[in-house]
Amino acid sequence: MSKSELIEGVDAQKLANTIRALAMDAVEQAKSGHPGMPMGMADAATVLFSKFLKYDPSEPNWPDRDRFVLSAGHGSMLLYALLYLTGYADMTLDEIKRFRQLGSKTAGHPENFLASGIETTTGPLGQGLANAVGMAMAEAHLNARFGDDLVDHRTWVIAGDGCLMEGISQEAIALAGRQKLNKLIVIWDDNSISIDGAVSLSDNTDQKARFAASQWNVLSCNGHDMADVARAFEAATKSDKPVLIACKTTIGFGAPKKAGTAKAHGEPLGAEELAAAKAALGWAHGPFEIPDDIVKAWRAVGARSAGARELWQTKMKRDPLRDAFVAAMSGGNVEAAIAALGMQAAKMAAEKPSLATRASSGAAIDSMFDACPELLGGSADLTGSNNTHAKGSADFTPENREGRYVRYGIREHGMAAAMNGMALHGGVIPYSGTFLSFADYSRPAIRLGALMGIRVIHVMTHDSIGLGEDGPTHQPVEQLAALRAIPNLHVFRPADAVEAAECWQAALLNEDGPSILALSRQATPALRDDASENLSVRGAYELLPAEGGVSKVAIFATGTEVALAAKAREMLQAEGIPTRVISAPCFEMFELQDEAYQNAVCGDDEELKIGCEAAIGQGWFEAFGLDAFVGMSSFGTSAPAKDAYKHFGITAEALVETAKELL
Amino acid sequence: MSKSELIEGVDAQKLANTIRALAMDAVEQAKSGHPGMPMGMADAATVLFSKFLKYDPSEPNWPDRDRFVLSAGHGSMLLYALLYLTGYADMTLDEIKRFRQLGSKTAGHPENFLASGIETTTGPLGQGLANAVGMAMAEAHLNARFGDDLVDHRTWVIAGDGCLMEGISQEAIALAGRQKLNKLIVIWDDNSISIDGAVSLSDNTDQKARFAASQWNVLSCNGHDMADVARAFEAATKSDKPVLIACKTTIGFGAPKKAGTAKAHGEPLGAEELAAAKAALGWAHGPFEIPDDIVKAWRAVGARSAGARELWQTKMKRDPLRDAFVAAMSGGNVEAAIAALGMQAAKMAAEKPSLATRASSGAAIDSMFDACPELLGGSADLTGSNNTHAKGSADFTPENREGRYVRYGIREHGMAAAMNGMALHGGVIPYSGTFLSFADYSRPAIRLGALMGIRVIHVMTHDSIGLGEDGPTHQPVEQLAALRAIPNLHVFRPADAVEAAECWQAALLNEDGPSILALSRQATPALRDDASENLSVRGAYELLPAEGGVSKVAIFATGTEVALAAKAREMLQAEGIPTRVISAPCFEMFELQDEAYQNAVCGDDEELKIGCEAAIGQGWFEAFGLDAFVGMSSFGTSAPAKDAYKHFGITAEALVETAKELL
Repeated sequence: MSKSELIEGVDAQKLANTIRALAMDAVEQAKSGHPGMPMGMADAATVLFSKFLKYDPSEPNWPDRDRFVLSAGHGSMLLYALLYLTGYADMTLDEIKRFRQLGSKTAGHPENFLASGIETTTGPLGQGLANAVGMAMAEAHLNARFGDDLVDHRTWVIAGDGCLMEGISQEAIALAGRQKLNKLIVIWDDNSISIDGAVSLSDNTDQKARFAASQWNVLSCNGHDMADVARAFEAATKSDKPVLIACKTTIGFGAPKKAGTAKAHGEPLGAEELAAAKAALGWAHGPFEIPDDIVKAWRAVGARSAGARELWQTKMKRDPLRDAFVAAMSGGNVEAAIAALGMQAAKMAAEKPSLATRASSGAAIDSMFDACPELLGGSADLTGSNNTHAKGSADFTPENREGRYVRYGIREHGMAAAMNGMALHGGVIPYSGTFLSFADYSRPAIRLGALMGIRVIHVMTHDSIGLGEDGPTHQPVEQLAALRAIPNLHVFRPADAVEAAECWQAALLNEDGPSILALSRQATPALRDDASENLSVRGAYELLPAEGGVSKVAIFATGTEVALAAKAREMLQAEGIPTRVISAPCFEMFELQDEAYQNAVCGDDEELKIGCEAAIGQGWFEAFGLDAFVGMSSFGTSAPAKDAYKHFGITAEALVETAKELL
Repeated sequence: MSKSELIEGVDAQKLANTIRALAMDAVEQAKSGHPGMPMGMADAATVLFSKFLKYDPSEPNWPDRDRFVLSAGHGSMLLYALLYLTGYADMTLDEIKRFRQLGSKTAGHPENFLASGIETTTGPLGQGLANAVGMAMAEAHLNARFGDDLVDHRTWVIAGDGCLMEGISQEAIALAGRQKLNKLIVIWDDNSISIDGAVSLSDNTDQKARFAASQWNVLSCNGHDMADVARAFEAATKSDKPVLIACKTTIGFGAPKKAGTAKAHGEPLGAEELAAAKAALGWAHGPFEIPDDIVKAWRAVGARSAGARELWQTKMKRDPLRDAFVAAMSGGNVEAAIAALGMQAAKMAAEKPSLATRASSGAAIDSMFDACPELLGGSADLTGSNNTHAKGSADFTPENREGRYVRYGIREHGMAAAMNGMALHGGVIPYSGTFLSFADYSRPAIRLGALMGIRVIHVMTHDSIGLGEDGPTHQPVEQLAALRAIPNLHVFRPADAVEAAECWQAALLNEDGPSILALSRQATPALRDDASENLSVRGAYELLPAEGGVSKVAIFATGTEVALAAKAREMLQAEGIPTRVISAPCFEMFELQDEAYQNAVCGDDEELKIGCEAAIGQGWFEAFGLDAFVGMSSFGTSAPAKDAYKHFGITAEALVETAKELL
């Protein structure tokens, strides 16, 4: 340790020990938490926040701030301590005293929506690292679009061994390496300890060689030698590639008995060990007590980028791209996209094409892509299948940062998490594609997007057994139900080209959560000839009324099955049975409607209600008060789409038969 | 190419071209599929099947065969061609002609339950590679247990660029490297092409360096030079570590215009290109036509290990461990485990402990672990939290292959997929643990286990907001519903120590599908004092009857919420409202009961029915015909468990209130 160094007139080591003390005290008081990581990384974090990170607690959302991501989210007290000490108004000492208590801003793992300065929600390992890749991509893109004066910042990550063991890390690392994200710096808390004990119990990967294999620059430092840490950080800022810094630390640094062991990881140190640790660190203060001079020094540390922020604001004011930048950062061009989609919907209503809904979605993207420069597309190596590539758009690459299409590679999980990072960064609206079946691969990131409440649009094609020959591994059956189960996620399944444009509108307007667009591989007929109102945003609506009397049957369907419902209605009407068809492109938005609307759509108890979706029925009965459901109850099968539908009895004839049986 | 080489008297190149021709013809006839990979890998696969792979088409399930895993499952025609040519009875030329048609054995991607010789179901990329790691672990363990005479085989994998880009591959690679699985050989079809185009669009990872970083040996060969391929394979069989063979190939090898491009990947070549390819390959035969001498040579290739198989059978007959081996391979010791669990249930019924159900599960594991030597446990670095470590069991390591506990590391996805591989291999019954929230990470592998119908037991603790302070990132809310949505997966959520033992019994008896055991972090009171019958296997049962008249309220609950239901019942009974409690540890098993039983449990329409689970209600209403549900409708919160339950209104009081409101 370089004890002699002073920061703002105070022994740097003391500043670091403040973090350690707060972490120990907060975990002890909460009777749960993770003291070891904050204690291990306190020195490196002190160097980062006092010398390198560009941030301003007085303006936490300053667009050109560096992003700091605590990917090892269990070390949340490290972040909370730093936010409090550097002067973020949200983070008071009282909040730290209420660590992990109901309603506090100091949740067990950092939740970005609870306090400013928390850039992303972490805890599920590897996610923060992958978010950071997306943040760095957003920065690179916006830098190319708006120039150095407006956008020029780094993304710093602290990742643990767990982050690096999770598979998502490989997807993130390889994507970052390919994209040469030289302003991405990952500090690996290399403490050789995981929950079960030594990391070597389960891993002997040479992490430095692994990152180098994916075209990163790799540095090392002693995480308890501040000068050495500063040297590594300084070198990292000059890299032409993303950088890994292997920062060798001792977990629970300072705790006489538990340091360097798994016992320091995830539980309070206990009164005795805590006291001994404070003694060993020379910290002679009671719980949550911090001498004024130390608080003062930390606040001075926190103020060090205020000048840079002011300068940026000055530059910003006179920048010719100012308005465009403000619009981008506030999502202002969404309105133009909405308008373009409205035109597209009207066009489709007039043309009435028979198209796969993935193709309708592709046309919708084409229609709005130029109007909304914030849209940043991509696909997990299924571009032609997902119809996500807007006509004429260029790839985002190291050579062309202005490109607006990302070749994510076969990395659904890393892609979804990177999109989360982009949305969190701001200035871009990320969307990208894969098959609906592979929503399972990206599910942890989709969930975090929903928890964080951020606008990320997941295009998911090949949305049923209708994908045909690829078979049950690729045919989603339970994915729609499983996605609808995630709180705050909107799952859209449009029925034709008009609904596809409408659902895109709804997804873009859903600023506070992610959306799924479930789209078909196979063609489906046009059903709407009027697009004067966006009916999809009601979640479910009567597409076809009953004729010739009071409705006896109501068929509720989504996506390609709405056409089956329409055909079944025709057959039932021909037999004199008045039948309605309700298209239900988004269950979640239907739930948001008032009761009167819901009741009007659902009809009364006298009417027979049948649901239809080429998927399992879970959730359908309670959503619409169904009497019966025509769908799947097993995995699919490899066969041409028509054969598969017939095999599983998902046909207009089956709907008619079901209706007549139950009437 | 080494054109001069003969295999069974026929030009080796001709044998390889048979695979190419069949792949082209089948894809052309199906009008869909992937010709490029089989054409690229035909030479290497011919070398593997004719000189290295130990297998016997006449006894496809010979326990000591080498396992061959086609991780790049889209290249299914490679496998089907090989199975047909080498003489597997299941795989006829007719089946190949019906490639990708309804009811054929030749699904778009290989499905292991359709035809013998298909070792695992692949298609979702990276899964096969991770399955193979589990197979190799099972082999190593059984080799240690039963010796070289009975168990001594390799696991060969063909993986593509997509497999290596998926994050799960890193988990698999690192686990295999740590475990020094030297009988695992991965042949990487290094063709530099993915669906979107060149791999370099999205990846510039040095794969060889990456594998070396995780302690693999790495070899290279020219995939179109059979002698060079053979040299690499030969070297691989002598490795002290797992081996990657970078096998440089041309996708669509032979197709004059499409070879080496993404156009050869995933669609028929088209009549013209197909004809040109056959001409270029010197293959002068019509669709599906194979000259007799070539078929004969291939059949001779297929018969080459018959002698080894016979020798193995001879050795087997006189092996002192024969009976134990047969028992292990047929899962014969499960009965003993069931018996032990029965004793454990009885003990718990007598002792009535208040325990977290994770602790009850841990005790159940302890009770049976010795009785069933096939049980192979583990955890994704949450051993102490998951209670998965049987008392006194040793770790499975390179130094101790007899160990029965796997330190999987922080690799939920790779762990679940490895367990799939173990179950497919046979001889072990894999179980392992993580948090229920992280079921999302392993979901694609859980799904494949369900599709394959294999016995894998996923212990998933911390199963609700009851985990408390770790907060919403770690609190499952939608996971139970999302898992129940997967066909052929049994989701168990026991309510006390008796049910925990019963659910373990049910999971072990579920030979044809995976099981989830959702278990609590927090303690919950004993509810059962009689374990004379396993009531959990009925899925749902009346735990507490109504007293003092006809039941007016029925409360359905699972897991820790059953205790809340019991308390609510007590309160309602005290007010003179006869109330029943139904414990529902497994929805799927309840669905399997006959209608009379289901109706008896659910009761009639006069009774008010309330469900309770600290999770979302999706699926609950239709499962039991509920009138109301007390549970979650949003993500959780970081707080002590009791505070969280109270905050979200999941209490006995809330149940009573709901009942009284609706009565």
